[in-house]
Amino acid sequence: LPTHAEKTMLIAVIGGGLLVSPEALRLAEEVGRELARKGVGVVCGGLGGVMEAACRGASEEGGLTIGILPTSRAEDANPYVHVPIPTGLGHARNILVVRSARAVIAVDGGYGTLTEIAHALVEGTPVVALQSWEIAIDGRRDEAVHRAATAQEAVELAIKLARERG
Amino acid sequence: LPTHAEKTMLIAVIGGGLLVSPEALRLAEEVGRELARKGVGVVCGGLGGVMEAACRGASEEGGLTIGILPTSRAEDANPYVHVPIPTGLGHARNILVVRSARAVIAVDGGYGTLTEIAHALVEGTPVVALQSWEIAIDGRRDEAVHRAATAQEAVELAIKLARERG
Amino acid sequence: LPTHAEKTMLIAVIGGGLLVSPEALRLAEEVGRELARKGVGVVCGGLGGVMEAACRGASEEGGLTIGILPTSRAEDANPYVHVPIPTGLGHARNILVVRSARAVIAVDGGYGTLTEIAHALVEGTPVVALQSWEIAIDGRRDEAVHRAATAQEAVELAIKLARERG
Amino acid sequence: LPTHAEKTMLIAVIGGGLLVSPEALRLAEEVGRELARKGVGVVCGGLGGVMEAACRGASEEGGLTIGILPTSRAEDANPYVHVPIPTGLGHARNILVVRSARAVIAVDGGYGTLTEIAHALVEGTPVVALQSWEIAIDGRRDEAVHRAATAQEAVELAIKLARERG
Repeated sequence: LPTHAEKTMLIAVIGGGLLVSPEALRLAEEVGRELARKGVGVVCGGLGGVMEAACRGASEEGGLTIGILPTSRAEDANPYVHVPIPTGLGHARNILVVRSARAVIAVDGGYGTLTEIAHALVEGTPVVALQSWEIAIDGRRDEAVHRAATAQEAVELAIKLARERG
Repeated sequence: LPTHAEKTMLIAVIGGGLLVSPEALRLAEEVGRELARKGVGVVCGGLGGVMEAACRGASEEGGLTIGILPTSRAEDANPYVHVPIPTGLGHARNILVVRSARAVIAVDGGYGTLTEIAHALVEGTPVVALQSWEIAIDGRRDEAVHRAATAQEAVELAIKLARERG
Repeated sequence: LPTHAEKTMLIAVIGGGLLVSPEALRLAEEVGRELARKGVGVVCGGLGGVMEAACRGASEEGGLTIGILPTSRAEDANPYVHVPIPTGLGHARNILVVRSARAVIAVDGGYGTLTEIAHALVEGTPVVALQSWEIAIDGRRDEAVHRAATAQEAVELAIKLARERG
Repeated sequence: LPTHAEKTMLIAVIGGGLLVSPEALRLAEEVGRELARKGVGVVCGGLGGVMEAACRGASEEGGLTIGILPTSRAEDANPYVHVPIPTGLGHARNILVVRSARAVIAVDGGYGTLTEIAHALVEGTPVVALQSWEIAIDGRRDEAVHRAATAQEAVELAIKLARERG
């Protein structure tokens, strides 16, 4: 750790905690690994599934992992979370995951993931989706959510968008 | 007011606070009016636009209106809110609007409205949309958001779904 | 209910939900009754003990009662709550009880009540205590918490302080 | 950083952000320094005053510092925060500072600090006070807040109590 704070850029990895496909878990782990290789920390909801896979990937490459938990017990974090933040706020903690990040990468995901994508769009935080939600209004697709085909592409795009936003 | 609590059924009306079309405002006001006629209270985010139109409609018919505000000042509520709940939580208050309601009617809306729709889907709270968001994943439209064509249809459907859910 | 919103003044009644003395319950009920007689609504944490006693007193006199619940289930409200606001925020909902009120009356109470007194002092919301916490720093008693000896005195003082604050 | 998560024990340092005495700042910095020397991370509210002094002390000794901010902007963190968590929750974030910690050290402090002491008492999290609040009910002093005379004593006691609690 630096003796003076060199703030680590944090990018959120969001996605389902349960009933996640092996393909999504593989993608999430690769996203975590790529982020760590580029010196970017992972912030997530701290639980299993996509969250755990991203933390495992990041942790294997020596990256920092933050888990903002819905419960009030640090022990509920997955084993690859370095810094658990137990909130006791339930799903209201989703907005905190987004606010802690400079960009968001969504992998697969259920309705909880959709709350996080929507909160990111409210805040103007860039969102990159890997096999995740598409949204439309009045029959017109909303293009604010960026698409990526691979973990590497998602990470490069998220970092680029985070830097552009400043 | 009853001397013993007869809990009023509350339905949330959600939608944009700014830059709302005249058609959406007309719909929201009619939704508020219909809810009040059926003895249902309106809970909303307490500000302007769709929220104010729904409260005005409900209030004109003698209905109860609750405004769960993002700010910590009751004075920020629109003039048709009977019970302002100032939270100081910013957009994190969106989840509280949804949790206070037995069903949700979305009218038009921006990304803030999408956060509320998504939180409702997480909780299993029925959502009826009037000219609002559509969502899809992996190219498949998600049909969990019900559609209505008129204010009256939206109100009847929302009450029916709320009762079925129990 | 008024056809246009005449905003009801709300005063919070805070105190323990469990292990409350019969004397504290009697005081809380009388506080609720007095508030309702003066046209003031009761906002509270929505559960049992002091909260339920205050709601029962208010409800018997036809007053409005709001319960801001720690859980996400409206059914957890005591039977005298007209408007349950289920938050799912756990003890983080305590600050919302205080923010919704123009003044706070504390009856007895445990540490949860102390969080609410402290949040009220942060916000500059007047606090009147009936047999509740005293606070001191560096050996000097802090006189920001007002004392009352009876329910009637507490209610009159709380309303006076709420009006003075504007 | 470890390649697998070795969870760092976090202890919260709480106290005023403004109008803090030079003596309290000196104590807070020494608390931060001592915590870091013992391998314990600092979690705090992320702003100035006691929070900044504790982070500066910890950072100078190579310790980890987490700042859970009331605003939604990471840039509002003091320069010694390694991991800013911007919440946008205002004072409602106080409870998160407490929940993230295994024990709490209070240095001086205003009413905001009292909210954190009270939330810690609710959760059963040990609190050690250096020149901070005393509380009493019914004329009886509540001894749940532990006292310390020096920064070193406060840190040793907080770590001992955190370990005993498990």
